[in-house]
Amino acid sequence: MSFDDIIDRRGTHCVKWDMMEAAYGVSPEGGIAMWVADMEFRPPQAVQDAVQAMADHGIYGYFGDDSGYLDAIRWWMETRHGWAVDPAHVFTTHGLVNGTAMCVDAFTQAGDGVVLFTPVYHAFARVIKAAGRRVAELEMPRDDGRYVLDFDAFDRAMTGDERMLVFCSPHNPGGRVWTREELEGVAAFARRHDLILVSDEIHHDLVMPGRRHIPMALIDGIADRLVMMSAATKTFNIAGAHVGNVIVADDTLRKRFAQRMAAMGNSPNSFGLHMVTAAYSPDGAAWVDDLVAYLDGNRRIFDAGIDAVPGLRSMPLEATYLAWVDFADTGMDRAEAIRRIERDAKIAVNHGPTFGKGGETFVRFNIAAPRTQVEEAVERVQRAFGDLQ
Amino acid sequence: MSFDDIIDRRGTHCVKWDMMEAAYGVSPEGGIAMWVADMEFRPPQAVQDAVQAMADHGIYGYFGDDSGYLDAIRWWMETRHGWAVDPAHVFTTHGLVNGTAMCVDAFTQAGDGVVLFTPVYHAFARVIKAAGRRVAELEMPRDDGRYVLDFDAFDRAMTGDERMLVFCSPHNPGGRVWTREELEGVAAFARRHDLILVSDEIHHDLVMPGRRHIPMALIDGIADRLVMMSAATKTFNIAGAHVGNVIVADDTLRKRFAQRMAAMGNSPNSFGLHMVTAAYSPDGAAWVDDLVAYLDGNRRIFDAGIDAVPGLRSMPLEATYLAWVDFADTGMDRAEAIRRIERDAKIAVNHGPTFGKGGETFVRFNIAAPRTQVEEAVERVQRAFGDLQ
Repeated sequence: MSFDDIIDRRGTHCVKWDMMEAAYGVSPEGGIAMWVADMEFRPPQAVQDAVQAMADHGIYGYFGDDSGYLDAIRWWMETRHGWAVDPAHVFTTHGLVNGTAMCVDAFTQAGDGVVLFTPVYHAFARVIKAAGRRVAELEMPRDDGRYVLDFDAFDRAMTGDERMLVFCSPHNPGGRVWTREELEGVAAFARRHDLILVSDEIHHDLVMPGRRHIPMALIDGIADRLVMMSAATKTFNIAGAHVGNVIVADDTLRKRFAQRMAAMGNSPNSFGLHMVTAAYSPDGAAWVDDLVAYLDGNRRIFDAGIDAVPGLRSMPLEATYLAWVDFADTGMDRAEAIRRIERDAKIAVNHGPTFGKGGETFVRFNIAAPRTQVEEAVERVQRAFGDLQ
Repeated sequence: MSFDDIIDRRGTHCVKWDMMEAAYGVSPEGGIAMWVADMEFRPPQAVQDAVQAMADHGIYGYFGDDSGYLDAIRWWMETRHGWAVDPAHVFTTHGLVNGTAMCVDAFTQAGDGVVLFTPVYHAFARVIKAAGRRVAELEMPRDDGRYVLDFDAFDRAMTGDERMLVFCSPHNPGGRVWTREELEGVAAFARRHDLILVSDEIHHDLVMPGRRHIPMALIDGIADRLVMMSAATKTFNIAGAHVGNVIVADDTLRKRFAQRMAAMGNSPNSFGLHMVTAAYSPDGAAWVDDLVAYLDGNRRIFDAGIDAVPGLRSMPLEATYLAWVDFADTGMDRAEAIRRIERDAKIAVNHGPTFGKGGETFVRFNIAAPRTQVEEAVERVQRAFGDLQ
């Protein structure tokens, strides 16, 4: 298989294509789906083989013995991230929205504040609010067109009711790979305000050449308040399997999290366990290397094409396949910018405000697609904003 | 395929076979796994085709548009159970242990009592306790060798802190299909003690010829305190997919449940949704009819063979494939009876005490297996207790 292959996902219960008309009024006939964060690529052969082996066996009963699954996680984190994970510290949740929700449930109370550095992945605020907690939005400033962390400003904005920080590393949207100094700053901020630090690192494998992701678990002085979250679902495009890892090294936090997992009666599904075990392998690693090189090519084409439109600016991605495009300098209001993208260019994108404060003049494009589709999208955007040329 | 086919599940991460040595000391080499409640049968071709279609498509992204899935549920409940389900009332949980846990979480508080008519499915007590609630065990008496409900005794045992009843219909273990009069009694009991009634009907499709399951939703006067739970996973042997339905007709209860589902960030996995949609179909229905006929044959052979051993008695199954065998009249203590089953007969079974009060002198055999395996198990039990002949 090649990342260039066009795979028609319409009519497969794929939310990205089959729901885009309902969500954005963009017809899948002629439209391009660039919203939901999954990819237009098949996962590596090892994952396909795992699913095929399940189909060939044909009995789908209760899964047992997750030691191979846990060992695959241990191997991946060690090999790819230099992070030694004790398999006994791993909880498998139903993806990381559920993982985030379980952290909010386990470590905060109704009415507590949960800090987000915004704009940030929209589902965080959704589950925090649904649980009756307060979302404490701390808006990130930009420096040279990239998001940065202003801890002095963040300190001033704290009200004292905050108990947790859900941090996104690498950052979605915006694609920052945080430096060691920034991560140390986040750890110090969490300590200073006595916050549980939940580090969502789901994009940790999708880091552009020349950048290096540092797991928060490798930062000193944070282990006693740290919850790590990772998953194979984003890396390998198996989000439908809904499995994620919540990894808790601290004994007290882990005991509390285990209580809540038991109280929720959570057990992961066997498809996810088989697929992740297959993915976290040398074959999977080689595929990810190829994937990242391909995504790097896509983002260069996308960024160059978007930045060629006066007033549009794509934030330079250090990681992820989620391009964050600012239309502020077009002088258009959001309705007009969105109209041009959705109605004229016929592209479904995520709207910036759902990502919280700071997202007002942005839209998010998913560029994990065959290159011809990314090129077509760029051309359409250029045409839709052609009067600005 | 035939239910007579022997399918080797060893080495497939099947908990029933691959964990039985760790759990019971019964080696999969020469042992027979009759504990975990999944079947040795492949699901109907429609389900296999659904999995194969997913594998052939090869992209496993986020699932969207569950209207076909919900309509399949509506069709199944109407066609098979005469129960009109509004799709808007359906929540999809990660199986029904999670579904039970979500009910406990949504409708009770720490310290509340949750009533179980015991012996009953062991996971109920597990999640109730894990959530910090009290398990209020009301032991069912037996009449003519079958469990019955003694509401006068149950009334006397109530302490006033009980807020919920988790009821198992048809009953596991024991295999009762409750009569309309009994169900009306349960509804009246719930009203009398102001309990939320959670009716776990996961075995509703596995009802022996001549019996008829009545959904609790068809009983008058209970709708305002009723939560229905069902799943395709038991019926079609797809428990690994971990999907179940919690169906709440009452507006107030449904709003509360929806809040907690949102706060938990729950989304079902795509494998489960595709498989259930395929299963709840005319093809699936025809397969279930064949399955039940086969299970009925198995239970006749099993019951006759067990009852031929003086002192052993298999409770006559009206539903389920879970045979509940009393060894009380052998005069043996549990250690001795278990030793004969596990060490001599080399059969892994569930031990009665995990099902709560009343389970002390019982073991549970799973007879959803090729008939030759059931026959072999019967012969082994007869040999292991041969000195009683």
